[in-house]
Order: sequence, then C-alpha cells, then structure tokens
Amino acid sequence: MAEKIGEFRKKLRIVDIMAGPDEGLGRVGQTLVVMGWVRTLRVQSSVTFIEVNDGSCLSNMQCVMDSDAEGYDQVEAGSIATGASIWVQGIVAASKGSKQKVELKVKKIIVLGKSDPSYPIQKKRVSREFLRTKAHLRPRTNTFGAVARVRNALAFATHKFFQEHGFVWVSSPIVTASDCEGAGEQFCVTTLIPNSGEAFDSPVDAIPKTKDGLIDWSQDFFGKPAFLTVSGQLNAETYATALSDVYTFGPTFRAENSNTSRHLAEFWMIEPELAFADLNDDMACATAYLQYVVTYVLENCKEDMDFFNTWIEKGIIDRLSDVAEKDFVQMTYTDAIELLLKTNKKFEFPVKWGCDLQSEHERYITEEAFGGCPVIIRDYPKEIKAFYMRQNDDGRTVAAMDMLVPRVGELIGGSQREERLEYLEARLDDLKLNKDSYWWYLDLRRYGSVPHAGFGLGFERLVQFATGIENIRDAIPFPRAPGSAEF
Amino acid sequence: MAEKIGEFRKKLRIVDIMAGPDEGLGRVGQTLVVMGWVRTLRVQSSVTFIEVNDGSCLSNMQCVMDSDAEGYDQVEAGSIATGASIWVQGIVAASKGSKQKVELKVKKIIVLGKSDPSYPIQKKRVSREFLRTKAHLRPRTNTFGAVARVRNALAFATHKFFQEHGFVWVSSPIVTASDCEGAGEQFCVTTLIPNSGEAFDSPVDAIPKTKDGLIDWSQDFFGKPAFLTVSGQLNAETYATALSDVYTFGPTFRAENSNTSRHLAEFWMIEPELAFADLNDDMACATAYLQYVVTYVLENCKEDMDFFNTWIEKGIIDRLSDVAEKDFVQMTYTDAIELLLKTNKKFEFPVKWGCDLQSEHERYITEEAFGGCPVIIRDYPKEIKAFYMRQNDDGRTVAAMDMLVPRVGELIGGSQREERLEYLEARLDDLKLNKDSYWWYLDLRRYGSVPHAGFGLGFERLVQFATGIENIRDAIPFPRAPGSAEF
Repeated sequence: MAEKIGEFRKKLRIVDIMAGPDEGLGRVGQTLVVMGWVRTLRVQSSVTFIEVNDGSCLSNMQCVMDSDAEGYDQVEAGSIATGASIWVQGIVAASKGSKQKVELKVKKIIVLGKSDPSYPIQKKRVSREFLRTKAHLRPRTNTFGAVARVRNALAFATHKFFQEHGFVWVSSPIVTASDCEGAGEQFCVTTLIPNSGEAFDSPVDAIPKTKDGLIDWSQDFFGKPAFLTVSGQLNAETYATALSDVYTFGPTFRAENSNTSRHLAEFWMIEPELAFADLNDDMACATAYLQYVVTYVLENCKEDMDFFNTWIEKGIIDRLSDVAEKDFVQMTYTDAIELLLKTNKKFEFPVKWGCDLQSEHERYITEEAFGGCPVIIRDYPKEIKAFYMRQNDDGRTVAAMDMLVPRVGELIGGSQREERLEYLEARLDDLKLNKDSYWWYLDLRRYGSVPHAGFGLGFERLVQFATGIENIRDAIPFPRAPGSAEF
Repeated sequence: MAEKIGEFRKKLRIVDIMAGPDEGLGRVGQTLVVMGWVRTLRVQSSVTFIEVNDGSCLSNMQCVMDSDAEGYDQVEAGSIATGASIWVQGIVAASKGSKQKVELKVKKIIVLGKSDPSYPIQKKRVSREFLRTKAHLRPRTNTFGAVARVRNALAFATHKFFQEHGFVWVSSPIVTASDCEGAGEQFCVTTLIPNSGEAFDSPVDAIPKTKDGLIDWSQDFFGKPAFLTVSGQLNAETYATALSDVYTFGPTFRAENSNTSRHLAEFWMIEPELAFADLNDDMACATAYLQYVVTYVLENCKEDMDFFNTWIEKGIIDRLSDVAEKDFVQMTYTDAIELLLKTNKKFEFPVKWGCDLQSEHERYITEEAFGGCPVIIRDYPKEIKAFYMRQNDDGRTVAAMDMLVPRVGELIGGSQREERLEYLEARLDDLKLNKDSYWWYLDLRRYGSVPHAGFGLGFERLVQFATGIENIRDAIPFPRAPGSAEF
C-alpha cells in the first residue's frame, strides 16, 4: 500500500536552453517543453510570435506559432495575453531574429492561467514608484527579475566566500532583551498588544499595567521589554571567541524615521568576526570579500549585468571590473581630513578634525580624489565611534575603518574590538552605559580574551552597488519603511 | 600618503593541520603557530601538556612543553588555565598518544588573554540547562562547538542544493502588516512603546490613543499594526510565479506560550516554492533535499558526527546513512489511518478519519511500522489544513504532505497550492477570512496562475535530526522562548 517516491524531476528552464556558448544552437531539432509567462504577443498575418519568460534568465523564449498548431484557438480567443502563463511544446529552430540564436517552433500550446487586461505589468514602461505598489508582480519585469537574480548570486557568493575561508555561519538572534548598542532606534516586540485580528480595535486600557500605571512587562511573552536587533555583532563575538572565524547573514532593523533612498527599516546585514585578528586583517578580509562577490557576479550574471550596464547605469561593468582587480586605497582619517582641507572644493558641511565625514566628503574622496577606486579610511576619532572599538595608542583614535565606494558611499564599516577589559569598562563608564547589562560581553574579555576584529555590510547597499539600482527599496523584495509594511 | 591593502591573511587553523588523510603527519618537522583556547593543562614532573582548541574542529592540538621553552614562566604563574587564550609556536612532531597522530613541541608560548578560576566551562561535565544560562560561552564546549559546525554545514548544504537546482534565494519580509495566515500567535512590532532605555518605566498612558481610547496606530512606525512573520510562504509564492523556483531561508516567529523541547519562539525556516509543479514534484524535491543535506553532513563533518554517534545518540550515523540512501515510504492519510486502526498498539489519542495525527501516531508509523524510514503522508482532510492548499478531486482532501522522521516526528510540511481563483476565494469565505486583505495573493491567481507547490522545514528540527540533540534550544545559538530572550 505504501508507494515509493520518484526522482526529483528537474524542469527544463529557458536558461538551460539559451545559456552556454552556443546559445542553444546545439539543441536545434529537439522537441521540448517550456513553461512561463507571456511577455508579449504579436499576431502577424502568417505567423504569431509569443515571447515567454520563466524568470530563469532575462531572455525570453521566442515561440513562433502557425495557425495550424494545436491550441491556436487560444490565440484567437485572446487567452494568450501579456501575463498569462503557458505550457509550450515545440521544436528548437535557429532564429532569424538578431536578439536570439534559437526560437521554438510551436507544436502545441496550453494556457495554464489567463491574465485579464487589468494586468498592471504591460509592455509599456512604468515607474519604479508604481511598481513598489505592486511588489508582488514587479519580479515579472526585466529590471526586478535581474535584481532578484543578482541579489541571489551576491548572497550565495557571500556564503561561498566565507565557507571557503573557514568561517562558520552563526544566526544571531532577531529578538533581544539585551540592551546592547545603547539602544538607538529600536522596534519593540510584544504580545501585550493583541493579535492582528483584533489589533485595530484594541483599547490602550487593555494593556496590562502595574499599580503605578507602568506597562507590566512581567506579563509580556519574554517577561521583560524585548526589541528587534540592530546588529548581530556582539552575539557574533561570542562565537568568534570559541570557533575563531564566524559570520552572520540575517535581518537587522532600525526604527529611524528617515524616508530616504538609502535607508530601510528592515535590511539584511553581513557581519563577519575574526578572532586573533587586527584591523589590518579586517581590512584585508573586507577587500577580499568585496572583490570575490563582485567577480562572482561578473562571471555568473553576465546577461543581467549587461542589462544593468545598458539600462540602469552605463559603465557599471567596467567599474565593477576595476573594483575586482585594482588595489583599494587606504588612508587614515587624519590624512583624509588633510586631503579635504587642501582641496578647493566647497563643501556644505565644514571639515575639521573630529567631525564625522559626511556623504559629500566621502564621495569627493572616492569619486574625485581617487577616481572611483574604493577607499578605506581608518583610525577615526574615538568620540564619533562605538564603545567597543579598540583604542589606539595615541589615546584619541580607535582602530575603526570604513570602506567607501563610488555612488553608494559607505559600504562597509568595521573595527578591531577592544579586547582589554579595563579599557572597555572605562569606555562604558565614559559613555554612561550600564555595565551590568553587558555582563556577558565583558565575560568574553574576562575569560580568554583575544584580539579580534570584524565588519558590517548592509546587503541591500551591496545590491545597489552591484546593479546600479538607485533606490534601496528596489534592492529588496519587500521593502519596509516608515508607513509601509505591505505584502 | 595613501597605502595599499595587503593580502587577505589566512591563519593556520587546527583543522588545517589535523584534517586530511595523514592527520597531520605530513607536517612533521614544520615550525608553525597555533592560536586558541586552553581546554586542559597537565603539569607533570618532566613535561607539561596543554590541550588547545580553536573551534575549527573538535580535536585539540596537544602542545608539549619543556620547562626550558620560552614562556614557561606563565605556566608557573598559573596564567595558562582552562579558558585562557594562547599563541603557541612549535614544531610538529609525531604523537605517542593514541588520540592524535601529531602534537606540537612548544618553542614559545604567549598568553593573549588570561582566564580566572571563575571560568564556568571547566573540564567537569555540566548540564545543558546550566549551559543555556551561559549561551555566550557554551560554544567553547565539545558539544556546542560540534552543533555549531554541523548547523553551519546544514545551512551551506541547503544553499548549495537549491542553487545547484536553479532556485533563487528570496528574502521574505520579517515585519509584515499583512494579515496572512489568518493571524495565529504573532508578535506585535511597534514604536509606540519607547526604546529599551526607557521601556521599563514607561506608563501605559503614554501610548497614543484615539478619542475612543483605542491604540492610535496612525502614530506607529508603519501607520498600522505590524507583526513578525510566521511564514514567508505567501511572499515566496509571488517570486515563484515570476522566477519559477525560489526558496526562502530566514527567521520566523511564533508567540505560542509553549515551553517544550520542540518549540522555539524564534526559529529559522526553509521554504522552497516550485512553479509548474504538483504535489509529486514537491515530495520528490523534499526527499532529494533531505538526502542531499544529510549526505553533505556525513561527508563533511565526519569528526563531529563521530562525536554525536558516541556521546549524544548511538547509531545516528547509520540512521542518517539509511536516510541518505533508501527510498522514503509514501502513503495517503487515509491509508495511514487504516494502518493505525489495524495495529494492536494502544494510543492515548483515538484514531479516526478526520483527526490530526498526533506525535504518538507519527512516531508509530515512522519508527515502528516502517522501521525508522522517513514516511511521507499525503492527501490530508481539508478541514485540518490551511486555506491555500489545493483541493483534491474527492472534495474532502487537499494535496498536502508531511514528512515524518524518527525521533523528531514532522520535519517537513508542504502542499500543492490552490491555483484556481474560484476555489481559493470559496475557501477564504468558508473560513471567514477577509478576502480584501489577500488582494495581492489572489492577484497571483488572476494574472497567469500556475500549478505550484512548496514546503516548509524548521531548520532547528533539521539540526536536531542530524545531531541527535534532544532539546531544540540547544540547536540554535541563542534560543528564544517564553520568559527568555537573553543575550
């Protein structure tokens, strides 16, 4: 009575047919089946052209259909409209068109799912703003399909790079009751407010309170206030001081009310942490990482990168090739300030040692002073950097580094961590942070402390950098921003 | 003034020395440096043995030190205690011990970080419950180091499997205002409650309210109630109906107040979604996936698996090898009920067509009836399954499947999705779910609907299955459960 499971059946995808050096010519004469969504339909007097895309690559399969092919009645009935899904059986033939080497001479078509004329992704160009309101359909466009594939390649290249270098992936927690980074703009996570079904009609009075009228956290799920993580770094450090080299790759959150094209409320972050490592190791790792993933995308996403190069940012392939091959520039913050003071360029924000570098300064350095080469700036004033960064011997700077790239600006921020317990405690005192809540972080310095360093990289910034996509909301499938958590 | 970045310097790890067919013998005579944490120190009359671990593998490097080696004074001073981190330079020598092939004859030792006697991870055995209170130090134990490495291997194997089969990784959103699964036990995400610094002293009255005393969601970050996702499936479907085959691998959340060894409030889930696929494709994919990752771990984590086989679950290697090689059993729910009714075994929960299978039933089927072979049960009664599952022609079952494995029970749950708009709408009506809030999900059936199927797998269950670890809280770096969101 019990049956056995069959083989994992692999569909033939359009990329399987069209990719490869012969672009499908080796399959001429084969009968095969393609399944996908209709991009365009052109009915001509003698023949009908149907462009089908299955998302496996940018290219459509051009299906050429005579009126005697099986299922032609569906063309006549208007069922094969843009957006419809079809099953097509045909014979691969050399194409006369210039866009592709092969096409499919249709033997039989079946419409799997119709699409009515209200389908919002028609052939005509639509704005990215409009497409954000159709986030469930936008991956069916050329641009968003290409972004999704390049994003996927960048993610897999990230895992490959770290795995090949012996790093262990660690999932840092998303919900945390630990007051780690000295707060910042966090989202509260609670069950004191009812489930989604009832939330809209929920009275404030229904929230449990103590006799003093305060929120009664003892009744909350975690028994205390809990928040969405802003960074997995401190958690990653616990694993780096046990397994040596680790990395996180997971979502992080900022509740900053900034509606810009550079910020998301929910974004994915990559945070490697290296044990027995200093700032030089950290910079070398960040450089090797970026060169690796850029090379991976140039080699594995040629068609999509050509698309970005033509339609989104001219010259992006050359720019990325440069990044993959050339040495990055490295300089100290102090030298960077000197460079900025010497230039004749007028800045909106005045430059002075001790100030945080503004976007205009960063862009001048990487885009103008060094002609588009990534620049790593190190040894920032300690006052403008986080408590956990290692103090340099000069007493006024810390072993921090930022990697700046053209257009995107700061792509990577990292530092050597303060491994000396007494320095770390003093810094927490300076900043009036509560040492008790860092008990476990300080334990890492009490028991077998080691020099260690790491960096953080916002994954969507990397997607922007690699694709030329201008607005970060188009670099993630479902963007979250103030007032917007749809889908 | 600007310097160039150096090569990405790769440390020599203990695994680099000890792994490989000769277990390090090829390096005998080489002088090299190892960095790690002291596991044990044994001072004997003529010689001192120091076991060092760097987390790259289970094995320690045995360092043998004469009293004339540089840095021996640190042994005498008690600085080289369990937990301390050290830098050791020495010559690789063949080992006389039976535990390892090579050891390090110490030339020089430097203590990088001392460890005082309060260090909680001493040589003596400690309970896993205790170690959960030291989640920042537990990866330094044999068990948790091995779990971390196998978890890492399972994660990478997951990406490799799907990438090799042409799936695109999609990050489904974590925060969502979309009332997707008909609620369930969700966490609310809000900025109406202050940041962590002030949360403890926050009065309920400070929460903004409408004139009717209801929570004023218009003032919240997203302008409406928002929740942590319970599943990325519906979002993944939007990408599957554009890119064909996709998968998610990200955190999901359940606010169920269940303090069991099988549940976490925050866990990682893998959710592939296959376009142009039915339930048979889905089962075949789930089978191929599980066999792939199990094989990967058996091949790439031999030492850690030997450890689990000896200390955690005897026979786990044979069990996993069986899973990797043998065909899985497949049967319908109706047949499974018949099987359960026929057995003489007494169950706590009575068996009847229409009931949900309980853990005792599932374990009987996979552990007893089929002798430890994974069993896939398909075609469940529609009343006990989710609204989006495809109705079978019999009108009373849906094309759903669960994969049961010994000990863990349900490891995978999946289904073919209802691609027919009219059936889906009728089902939403039946269940009194609000059709308007599914507008975008229904759009996928309005525009180019396709047969598609997918499944979900709780990653920590997979870690339990592959390691034999009994409590799910030990299968994730920082477990979240009722009353516990530490670290």
